Amino acid sequence: MNYNISRFFQFFLPKESKFLPLLRGQVADILKATDLLIEFIRVTGQEDRKRLYVEIKKIETHCDDLTNEIVDELNKTFITPFDREDIHLLAAQLDDLLDLINGSAKRVVLYQPREMPASMVQMAEHIREGALCIQTAVIELGKKRRNDNLVLSQCRRLHEIENTADDVYENFIISLFKQEKDAIELLKQVEIMQLLESATDKAYRVAEVLKTIVVKYS
Amino acid sequence: MNYNISRFFQFFLPKESKFLPLLRGQVADILKATDLLIEFIRVTGQEDRKRLYVEIKKIETHCDDLTNEIVDELNKTFITPFDREDIHLLAAQLDDLLDLINGSAKRVVLYQPREMPASMVQMAEHIREGALCIQTAVIELGKKRRNDNLVLSQCRRLHEIENTADDVYENFIISLFKQEKDAIELLKQVEIMQLLESATDKAYRVAEVLKTIVVKYS
Amino acid sequence: MNYNISRFFQFFLPKESKFLPLLRGQVADILKATDLLIEFIRVTGQEDRKRLYVEIKKIETHCDDLTNEIVDELNKTFITPFDREDIHLLAAQLDDLLDLINGSAKRVVLYQPREMPASMVQMAEHIREGALCIQTAVIELGKKRRNDNLVLSQCRRLHEIENTADDVYENFIISLFKQEKDAIELLKQVEIMQLLESATDKAYRVAEVLKTIVVKYS
Repeated sequence: MNYNISRFFQFFLPKESKFLPLLRGQVADILKATDLLIEFIRVTGQEDRKRLYVEIKKIETHCDDLTNEIVDELNKTFITPFDREDIHLLAAQLDDLLDLINGSAKRVVLYQPREMPASMVQMAEHIREGALCIQTAVIELGKKRRNDNLVLSQCRRLHEIENTADDVYENFIISLFKQEKDAIELLKQVEIMQLLESATDKAYRVAEVLKTIVVKYS
Repeated sequence: MNYNISRFFQFFLPKESKFLPLLRGQVADILKATDLLIEFIRVTGQEDRKRLYVEIKKIETHCDDLTNEIVDELNKTFITPFDREDIHLLAAQLDDLLDLINGSAKRVVLYQPREMPASMVQMAEHIREGALCIQTAVIELGKKRRNDNLVLSQCRRLHEIENTADDVYENFIISLFKQEKDAIELLKQVEIMQLLESATDKAYRVAEVLKTIVVKYS
Repeated sequence: MNYNISRFFQFFLPKESKFLPLLRGQVADILKATDLLIEFIRVTGQEDRKRLYVEIKKIETHCDDLTNEIVDELNKTFITPFDREDIHLLAAQLDDLLDLINGSAKRVVLYQPREMPASMVQMAEHIREGALCIQTAVIELGKKRRNDNLVLSQCRRLHEIENTADDVYENFIISLFKQEKDAIELLKQVEIMQLLESATDKAYRVAEVLKTIVVKYS
């Protein structure tokens, strides 16, 4: 038998938080990186692509620092605005999301595939729409008179985006295996698309954490 | 220094649970999906295979709903029959197991490998035996006068199954790399077998959570 | 609003631990395995390589037993020297690290790549240096008058090692994709190097847990 200690204390402890500005900082980084990712995929010159990758990598490092700051704060802070483990999980998932965005771009730089199919641009646009949903939800989370339905509708939208991205991935793979006869080129494109698709999965994982927080504290 | 709050409260709080029926529902879904998976691998026509995949996918979606229900209940419920995090972890691992079963079938549909080797059927049968062990253990978990040894013996069996599946995988890979000269076909078969094998790993992860619960509440 | 129960109780509960010797045992296993891994990669005969793999596998099984012992103790023990979940996470991550070392060696035995490039030896040496950092930190963790700065400097070093290993991996992949025209051989080498590189990532995950413990209990 277990016991939800946070519910017991939430009525008489003051609310205070450095966490929400840090989480919003993570989300802002994710948005900047997704804008760059779309440009990165569309661009054709290797030099332009490398330059854009360096910018994405810088943002990823910055987000790492924010994540570490959140973890350090959690360990030092007695009272947190939500369950400690939920803040930790949210920060970790946001960090993972940016890692996947950065990792996708890095694979392109490393592998230099012969072409960047239109499905990759589509996938990056789905990631960007997901990032916008996450931003709307995280901003709402920090408001005093929070609109829970606004957060939950973003979570539903993130689920839809994940499903759509899944279809994009599946159709891409089916046609790639039919058309591409060069095994190494196929290998490169499969791995890059898998990483892009896993970013939309991760955005939905973020939605699950957001939903958990809203349900607990409604 | 930490402190096991659940042990402290378990003596004077009433037992009550919507969780066990939901967990049993997840396990029933896993069993249905493994039966279909064996048929799916054995069947030869593309149309039959697609039809069976659609059925597996439906079950996976249903299990997703059950998992969400468990998470929502955990967030709303003050008292749980076991540690909150153990129920959450068990539900999440069961969900992951069905995702891997579904994912294996999906890869077959996407990649359309030239052949389905006998090792794939063997692997699916190991997954099914694991699902049966999990069912026995989860049913026992919900009984008032629980037989801990019965649960623990299922966990040991799940460990044995994982090891056997590992051997099946290894022997398959060694002979595949010796015989298959078509890199794309090799790639397809490796990825499908990796997913099937990871389902037996995941079933053992479930066993570890079951063991944790039994040891804590013995 | 949540509440750090451990901070509240740590002032009046006695310290006592079977955990630190078990954790040190895990680390000793990791060090033994990394020594063997370097030899395993350098050696040229298939028979020698198989013999060394059997030894690595034995150590991995032993570490599994230690991990299970830690989990069992955690479930039975009322008072732990650090947060229960941090000990659990540390033990699990150490176990994962040894799994990755064992998994890398296993892939070599299964795939029998045509050659073992110098980058693989370099990577194994980075893993070994990481293991030494972890050992220094875990030994310090168990001391009554712990030098926190010594632990934190090991964590920073583990971060540097991860970054260096990343560069080794990237340079290896770029030159492999330029030079290797045999898709199956390329596939083998990419997967082996990915596993070795993920061991250095995992060593940094261990560092993050160590840092968390030190920051919480400083």
